[in-house]
Amino acid sequence: MPGDEVRIGGHISRQYDAELEDIRSKVLAMGGLVEQQLADAVTALVDGDAELAGVVVTGDYKVNAYEVAIDEECTEVIAKRQPAASDLRLVLAVIKTIADLERIGDEAERIARMAQELARGKEGLPVDIEPLAARVRAMLHDALDAFARTDAEAAVETARKDLKVDRLYEGLLRQLITYMMEDPRSIPRALDVMWSARALERIGDRARNICEYVIYLVRGKDVRHTSLEQMEAEARRNHGP
Amino acid sequence: MPGDEVRIGGHISRQYDAELEDIRSKVLAMGGLVEQQLADAVTALVDGDAELAGVVVTGDYKVNAYEVAIDEECTEVIAKRQPAASDLRLVLAVIKTIADLERIGDEAERIARMAQELARGKEGLPVDIEPLAARVRAMLHDALDAFARTDAEAAVETARKDLKVDRLYEGLLRQLITYMMEDPRSIPRALDVMWSARALERIGDRARNICEYVIYLVRGKDVRHTSLEQMEAEARRNHGP
Repeated sequence: MPGDEVRIGGHISRQYDAELEDIRSKVLAMGGLVEQQLADAVTALVDGDAELAGVVVTGDYKVNAYEVAIDEECTEVIAKRQPAASDLRLVLAVIKTIADLERIGDEAERIARMAQELARGKEGLPVDIEPLAARVRAMLHDALDAFARTDAEAAVETARKDLKVDRLYEGLLRQLITYMMEDPRSIPRALDVMWSARALERIGDRARNICEYVIYLVRGKDVRHTSLEQMEAEARRNHGP
Repeated sequence: MPGDEVRIGGHISRQYDAELEDIRSKVLAMGGLVEQQLADAVTALVDGDAELAGVVVTGDYKVNAYEVAIDEECTEVIAKRQPAASDLRLVLAVIKTIADLERIGDEAERIARMAQELARGKEGLPVDIEPLAARVRAMLHDALDAFARTDAEAAVETARKDLKVDRLYEGLLRQLITYMMEDPRSIPRALDVMWSARALERIGDRARNICEYVIYLVRGKDVRHTSLEQMEAEARRNHGP
């Protein structure tokens, strides 16, 4: 290694630090793009705006391009820098986070396609999907924020919100079933709304996944498939009572 | 390193080879378990067998345990062995494959829960879900087989089958919508079947993901978000005309 290297950010190599920082900032840029895609998809759905829905559908390739580029950078860093401990955890958490972000992008695209379908009709939506959409958007935002600040406690708190999302989703399902049974001609339309609600619920699950990677990143422990209580205990382990 | 080490499987370290082989065989064991969970979930659904469905639901923790264990082994190998080139690709492909396998396990559990719900009624299913289920099971099996043999051409061929799965799924959806419109009282029941069909369709998507990791593993190129034609070209690059 050249002799003029100094320890910055804990590494002997200034370049290595720059590479890790670049990966982190690209993940956040990708997250911002996915948040925008989701926001636009929901607006298109609620407002019956087929044009905005089209923008979301054609914009999905940008999310995919981010995933491929970040994934390649991560592979290169592992091969070239042989990261250990927390750096390796960061890179592996990033690889998993971008896979979930990419699929959140796919769900946003699905919602936009339903919005295009629904915009053909004249009526508004048969149920109010906005409370669910607002909760899911906030959850995704908070998960990305927890990632940006590598804040395990915020991650646990955000993961916890998935329960509320699930309850809102189940309430919408019940309303839609009643609606369909009362007016069978509404079935195709109600199903499009149902798929959209389902997509939102799945985005909540994926935001929860991202929270779990943040906890893994901070605590070095895999908390997937554990209860929220265990996650909370893990996240708090490095704090006093 | 001890002096009695010999090159086996391309590595100076016998132990390292054993570690990679152990990871590979654990992925295949996990794959076999997930295939069994899916097979049982489908049987429970078609036969209205609530008991078998219960076995699938309570068995999902084993799939999760595999994922956590293999993921940890992969992280250790990266940290300890600093794998390069094809070994690193193998480990990263494994990390992604087990994430998809775990979620296929979740979908099988979802189907089993629908089977429990549907078994409460007296009637059989309103549509024949078996052709879709058979295709999806074959696709998962072939994807795991392509992984086991690191066979990129087989992976492309298997990925291609997702189109047929999607068509079968859409046909079922149309049948179910007609059924619901003709008999609105059947809606809750038809929706349970619809969620099951949807779960099968998603398993097809995830089997396709696994095929893409196999191509990446063999060719060293990320083929996600590319067309089947491009994937085919990639897979064939190392073969003559």
